[in-house]
Amino acid sequence: MLEAKYKKIKHAIKSKILEGLINPHEKISSESELMKKFSVSRHTVRLAIGELVNEGWLYREQGAGTFCADRANIESNKRTNKTQKNIAIVTTFISEYIFPSIIRGAESYLSENGYHVSIFNTHNEYEKERQILTTLLTGNYDGVIIEPTNSASANPNLNYYLQLENMNKPFVMINAVYDELEPISFMLDDVQGGFLQTEHLIQLGHQNIVCMHKTDDSQGQKRLKGYIKAHRKYNVPIDPKNIVTYNTLDEMTKPVEELEKILSRKINCPTGLVGYNDQLILNVMQIIRDKDLSVPKDISVVGYDDSPLAELSEVKFTSVKHPKSQLGLDAAKAIVKMVENQQPGKIIDIKSITYVPELNIRQSTSNFKSGLIIS
Amino acid sequence: MLEAKYKKIKHAIKSKILEGLINPHEKISSESELMKKFSVSRHTVRLAIGELVNEGWLYREQGAGTFCADRANIESNKRTNKTQKNIAIVTTFISEYIFPSIIRGAESYLSENGYHVSIFNTHNEYEKERQILTTLLTGNYDGVIIEPTNSASANPNLNYYLQLENMNKPFVMINAVYDELEPISFMLDDVQGGFLQTEHLIQLGHQNIVCMHKTDDSQGQKRLKGYIKAHRKYNVPIDPKNIVTYNTLDEMTKPVEELEKILSRKINCPTGLVGYNDQLILNVMQIIRDKDLSVPKDISVVGYDDSPLAELSEVKFTSVKHPKSQLGLDAAKAIVKMVENQQPGKIIDIKSITYVPELNIRQSTSNFKSGLIIS
Repeated sequence: MLEAKYKKIKHAIKSKILEGLINPHEKISSESELMKKFSVSRHTVRLAIGELVNEGWLYREQGAGTFCADRANIESNKRTNKTQKNIAIVTTFISEYIFPSIIRGAESYLSENGYHVSIFNTHNEYEKERQILTTLLTGNYDGVIIEPTNSASANPNLNYYLQLENMNKPFVMINAVYDELEPISFMLDDVQGGFLQTEHLIQLGHQNIVCMHKTDDSQGQKRLKGYIKAHRKYNVPIDPKNIVTYNTLDEMTKPVEELEKILSRKINCPTGLVGYNDQLILNVMQIIRDKDLSVPKDISVVGYDDSPLAELSEVKFTSVKHPKSQLGLDAAKAIVKMVENQQPGKIIDIKSITYVPELNIRQSTSNFKSGLIIS
Repeated sequence: MLEAKYKKIKHAIKSKILEGLINPHEKISSESELMKKFSVSRHTVRLAIGELVNEGWLYREQGAGTFCADRANIESNKRTNKTQKNIAIVTTFISEYIFPSIIRGAESYLSENGYHVSIFNTHNEYEKERQILTTLLTGNYDGVIIEPTNSASANPNLNYYLQLENMNKPFVMINAVYDELEPISFMLDDVQGGFLQTEHLIQLGHQNIVCMHKTDDSQGQKRLKGYIKAHRKYNVPIDPKNIVTYNTLDEMTKPVEELEKILSRKINCPTGLVGYNDQLILNVMQIIRDKDLSVPKDISVVGYDDSPLAELSEVKFTSVKHPKSQLGLDAAKAIVKMVENQQPGKIIDIKSITYVPELNIRQSTSNFKSGLIIS
């Protein structure tokens, strides 16, 4: 019971320091104030503070009180003194889809150069991202490669990123950015990618093209923008009901339900479909099959990311190439350069890279043949 | 009771047509299907369909069934035949703040040029925006000047905007854009505005500057980006706890609560503050006064929009100028040009305008005098 109580106080003070709510060299509340706030004895308060002092979170000054330690200094001393450097790679997912390739690209370069690599994933949830950022702020990490979570919305964890900067823990972003931070980043030109998907179908004669994009990530918003752009360039009017958008939360249900409705249309059934990624397209192929339609005879489909899934399906499908391991490698090179050149005032030349997308054309797309569907 | 039922069916069919779920010349469900779906008698279904035919939403073809009318044609014929043209102005708010100036700028030009003007507001709610877009799609409107609602998130009403385009009802956007649509737009460079607010304080010697921005609108996200940019340019580290973000939903409570906490800091009390708009700054001034601090002696503050409020407060405050009525005028000129040049294939030269912000410096900002606050 006592243990639980003093741990609670320790945790509360540590959290405040990590969130930047107590500054280095700022005096913390007095023992009496803490006793009152947490309804505990002086002994419990002293136990908590004693441990925080031992662990380097606080320091005491005779007659003056207890103060918040300057962790940026402590951390960087600690890091200067150790031989092994640590880089964290944070992605929304780890073991699925194209993430293993991206991580492998970064990981092999980092290992070869003597770095230890830790891997985390956020499941595209802010709460999980916050927990990981806390770990990165407190642990022995020298640099971070991070993929933004829910990049289409205002990020509530912006202050954690600014804390990383203040603690001299550089980071680079992959696949998307939190725009306010203007970070060094490595990502695909997703407007152009969405444009290519759609242009390909329009050039094959399709005019009635469904698009399905996940718009809680900025990648999806940009791909949708590319879809609209292509229609405008070729003067093809967009049927508003051909646009399906979904979120991480409803990605397992909404696209499937909407596509079933779309394929049940009696007239104006679409002859083309572009999708947010290859995972979605694999589901789409299943639904098309269930409706006794076939790809590409009845409907041409285009995926995104050119993942192994595009080769695994019965009909191998056309997809937009993602730089994957090259992107991981480039991000790793940049973060190493940033970590190894941290002397203040030293200007290092590191540039963001925007990769130009290309299509990998396979068997899922063909010329539009009028009247095939309404048979 | 019968009336309620047939109205419900009418409304359901109209909604589907407006959302683009039934296409022009697409056959609608049979009487029997509708009877089953709504659990009503054949008489009720016929009543509903009869009225929709009379009102031009549907048409009958002998022996073939009932079809969706091509409203784009009907509407544009209707509009060509009438003398008075109508423009809708849709803003998030109408009678408050800088909105009357913007609207006045647009309205006076439109009236002078023989247009009738209708004014709507969304309260920054998507549901309200959808209702208004429905009104615009069904009513006699020739063009729309619209301020996006909740512009920082993926807009669920994108398809309504695409329907406006399909119905040849051009629109321009003011203050922000839904980026996917790449519309003609009239807005302030808000990154630069946020930068100017902060640079001004840094140049006066301030290093500890709070910012409070509303981030469900892209304007706030951009102003926050400018705040970070200015700190980086002048090599001033950002204290993460100096960043306060809020939404339309908590704008009456969160900024006040956070500022009270910030001003109660025992050390590192800020000496500068930049805010999302002048309405916020007026509240901020009140809280500063309640804490027995004074502007600019203890804390310098900078508003945004240079609204009449900046002159109304006891200490007139420095603020970023917003083009207000000029922006309204430019938007009105553009929409008139678009409405009057709608022949297909005709290329008209209309350009978006991004206004360069400037500061209006008043009495709320002064040189930083070290040690004044901790007295």
